[in-house]
Amino acid sequence: MSVHPVLVGGEWVSSIGSKTFQAVNPATGEALPGVYPVSPWPEIERVIQAAAAASKEMHGWPGERFAAFLERYAARIEARKADLVQQAHLETALPAEGRLGNTELPRTINQLKTAAAAARSESWRCPTIDSKANIRSQFAAIGPVVVFGPNNFPYAFNGISGGDFAAAVAAGNPVIAKAHPSHPGTSRTFAEEALEAARETKMPAGFVQLIYRTEHADGAKLVSHPLIGATGYTGGRHTGLVLKEAADKVGKPIYLELSSINPVVILPGAFAERGEKLADEFTSSCLMGTGQFCTNPGLVLFVKSPASEQFRDQVRQKFAAAPVGTLLGPSVTKSLEHGVKTLAAHGATILTGGEAGGGKGASFQNTLLSTTADKFLSDAEALQTEAFGNASLFVECSSPEQLVRVLEAMEGNLTGCVYSDSNGADDALYQQIVPALRQRVGRLLNDKMPTGVAVSAAMNHGGPFPATGHPGFTAVGIPAAIHRFGMLQSYDNVREARLPCTLKNKNPGGVWRSIDGAWTQADVPV
Amino acid sequence: MSVHPVLVGGEWVSSIGSKTFQAVNPATGEALPGVYPVSPWPEIERVIQAAAAASKEMHGWPGERFAAFLERYAARIEARKADLVQQAHLETALPAEGRLGNTELPRTINQLKTAAAAARSESWRCPTIDSKANIRSQFAAIGPVVVFGPNNFPYAFNGISGGDFAAAVAAGNPVIAKAHPSHPGTSRTFAEEALEAARETKMPAGFVQLIYRTEHADGAKLVSHPLIGATGYTGGRHTGLVLKEAADKVGKPIYLELSSINPVVILPGAFAERGEKLADEFTSSCLMGTGQFCTNPGLVLFVKSPASEQFRDQVRQKFAAAPVGTLLGPSVTKSLEHGVKTLAAHGATILTGGEAGGGKGASFQNTLLSTTADKFLSDAEALQTEAFGNASLFVECSSPEQLVRVLEAMEGNLTGCVYSDSNGADDALYQQIVPALRQRVGRLLNDKMPTGVAVSAAMNHGGPFPATGHPGFTAVGIPAAIHRFGMLQSYDNVREARLPCTLKNKNPGGVWRSIDGAWTQADVPV
Repeated sequence: MSVHPVLVGGEWVSSIGSKTFQAVNPATGEALPGVYPVSPWPEIERVIQAAAAASKEMHGWPGERFAAFLERYAARIEARKADLVQQAHLETALPAEGRLGNTELPRTINQLKTAAAAARSESWRCPTIDSKANIRSQFAAIGPVVVFGPNNFPYAFNGISGGDFAAAVAAGNPVIAKAHPSHPGTSRTFAEEALEAARETKMPAGFVQLIYRTEHADGAKLVSHPLIGATGYTGGRHTGLVLKEAADKVGKPIYLELSSINPVVILPGAFAERGEKLADEFTSSCLMGTGQFCTNPGLVLFVKSPASEQFRDQVRQKFAAAPVGTLLGPSVTKSLEHGVKTLAAHGATILTGGEAGGGKGASFQNTLLSTTADKFLSDAEALQTEAFGNASLFVECSSPEQLVRVLEAMEGNLTGCVYSDSNGADDALYQQIVPALRQRVGRLLNDKMPTGVAVSAAMNHGGPFPATGHPGFTAVGIPAAIHRFGMLQSYDNVREARLPCTLKNKNPGGVWRSIDGAWTQADVPV
Repeated sequence: MSVHPVLVGGEWVSSIGSKTFQAVNPATGEALPGVYPVSPWPEIERVIQAAAAASKEMHGWPGERFAAFLERYAARIEARKADLVQQAHLETALPAEGRLGNTELPRTINQLKTAAAAARSESWRCPTIDSKANIRSQFAAIGPVVVFGPNNFPYAFNGISGGDFAAAVAAGNPVIAKAHPSHPGTSRTFAEEALEAARETKMPAGFVQLIYRTEHADGAKLVSHPLIGATGYTGGRHTGLVLKEAADKVGKPIYLELSSINPVVILPGAFAERGEKLADEFTSSCLMGTGQFCTNPGLVLFVKSPASEQFRDQVRQKFAAAPVGTLLGPSVTKSLEHGVKTLAAHGATILTGGEAGGGKGASFQNTLLSTTADKFLSDAEALQTEAFGNASLFVECSSPEQLVRVLEAMEGNLTGCVYSDSNGADDALYQQIVPALRQRVGRLLNDKMPTGVAVSAAMNHGGPFPATGHPGFTAVGIPAAIHRFGMLQSYDNVREARLPCTLKNKNPGGVWRSIDGAWTQADVPV
């Protein structure tokens, strides 16, 4: 059985490793035909060296070069859509039409194009000029970026095509992509197009590379290697923290998206005004994609009342009645089961669901749990266990004050939502609870479920630990996401001719720059 | 003997600890009269709780409140100048006039005023508005900030008055200052004024607090405490890495300035054009403040030639002839001795100096060392040992190519300087060597020594590890330094009335905001 090659230094080459793996079709439980290698350390080191050589070669290249690649790649992905959808559907069991072909792939293409526009505009660099002191600074490429993609977005967060990839390239870096082993075929197909696009746009050989799997210890060696600039990781908390420790130890930036239960607070006026509509909205958000979104609403908070009981019953019925989707694979079923059992073991009541099965292939019943704020407060860490998938926990509070205490006991999350009466009846309560929530989440929403993550300059797909490793960065949203892969470079008394174009006096490209404290697209006044 | 109180929760209170310490006058070696406490953990926990309460109380406060405090504080420092200069001179042996009173204190006051202006303008928040999607984001206070000041800047980097303090406050955070134990009296005097300024401007009780010393393990507990937002640390590498590990483990941002040897490259044309002048310039920069600057030029690189030999001899003579300054204390003498001996043990030749003594009190001879690039490349880690103080190492290369290899073997640094012929004779060589240098330093200088660190928006007082913990941040330069103490907060579909002022449609204060991709001081078009 032939083993798929890895993409190293601009060529598809046979892996030197002897271990292999196959992906599994989550809908059938059967192994898919492609056999993929586990890359041993010497192979990874070759990848690193090739990336470092590319990094050196691209030193000082204008954003236009990276924009050209990103756009060519986006066009090639578009042309390869049928293959990508077929492959990802087999590997993830996500719906080919509604989700993969019509939503996630267009989004992925859009991300690449948005990153291209940002690279071309150069404005992401935040060029800052102090004309009196003749000191000038900007963000510039940080060096080879390693991207670990997660299982739940085979396109939009894929290490070789997703948001981190696009941001790292827009900042002028080569990327070493580590495919998620649950969808190696999808990743391979992307890499084929990335390589062709790189050739067409004359990028260096080590600019885009792909490996499928490594030994655990080698992942830590990779992210902490002296030639690596930074790492983007989206995935489970345990593996992420191992990588974080290795990278932190040697001061290599690592941006992680680890886990989030995304609290949703429903105020009394919202129940009164549109309780049943909320039950629909919540159910649909929580079960969408079988709940496998980073921003899935995994915790709902409210002050107990007859209206909240009615809401709870409605949601329970809707969960029980809704079809059970297929999960991304047996490991997701297992971790979801573990999450639900942990919550139950710590006093949460299972209102519906709670057992594996119920759907096609890898699946777990739509699960709703409930607990009281008293219990939550006495065992807050365990009751914040993430149950990644189609499950959520209701926390019933006895008063608004107790609800605030629950929020104050919460870890960092990507999002926090507040539903309230549309005519202002909840406004005082809103002001009471929001400060505690605001400091604990990257994105605060009103009257909207957290599952949509728009690619917007103002998006924050980030948040305090353990949602991510640093609350100052976002993984989605251009240009902010690009800054993660830049280093700050100041030029002090450097001769005009030697400055990067974006810091020279003339600004023919109309780059947005901060000159003596004011943002402008004009030249430096001389 | 009475023990000085600590500043906790808005009051000067007796420490509950029993251990104490005294500072030493570096010029005489004698203990100074003030006795200061080592704070035990329960006291530190009280400080953390008070800071957290202040943080909560200040949630959403406009920058104007923090600007008012910073300006009042700056004015009070100005009025307290005589005491501060006398105290710092005794504790650091830095010259009262030239350095302390006429340079560092005015700089410190200027930093506080610049931070006040940034807080008032709110522009440091980088408000970003996507008017179509109605998503808005900005940076906001991260929570209580711990600041550890270093020994070498008793004012400008002091935990209770320096750049990190100013930046943390400008971002809207309370500060827990950990004084450097070598200048507790200076720190106490600042804290007295900070407390009064805080009272006058009606800040909460736990807004500014000061402790002097902790047990080592408690420092790590402090920076990793759940209620802490972030930490700023300037100091030795060993202690910094212990704190970094603790903070990283729980995802608490920690910004460190650890060590830097600041390579200076001198190209042949510069020797030919102004060799003797360079010898003067280098000597003056390297011995200024007895070499105790983070950006002291500790490594000089050049291609060996008759002109470079002449330069070396000139510098050697100037070092030998120059008066030997007093160091900041016996621990600095000891670490400098250790650094010099390490370099010598790894093959560097001592051209002059090399022994403790030679000046008043704590001192070490002005020391010049030399080695070859061959030796450097074969033992690069040891030969990058920081010899903090009045010492520098020359590395003689056999060719420009070898000089590039030396640069490529270098760790991250705060600065890198290149001196070249002013008429362009070195330009080809400059292009050859700069890429390797550029990626390894935060600030690149031309024809200028690195010891001046202007407070400029375009300054980068940062750089790749181990100079700092992350190459994307700067400790000097407003507004960039403020971002370190902010978290990114996005608002998705949040009702207009509930948005922070800086994200509302109207922009009466003319805050610089990025609206739909363009920077403007205008309102959101509606």
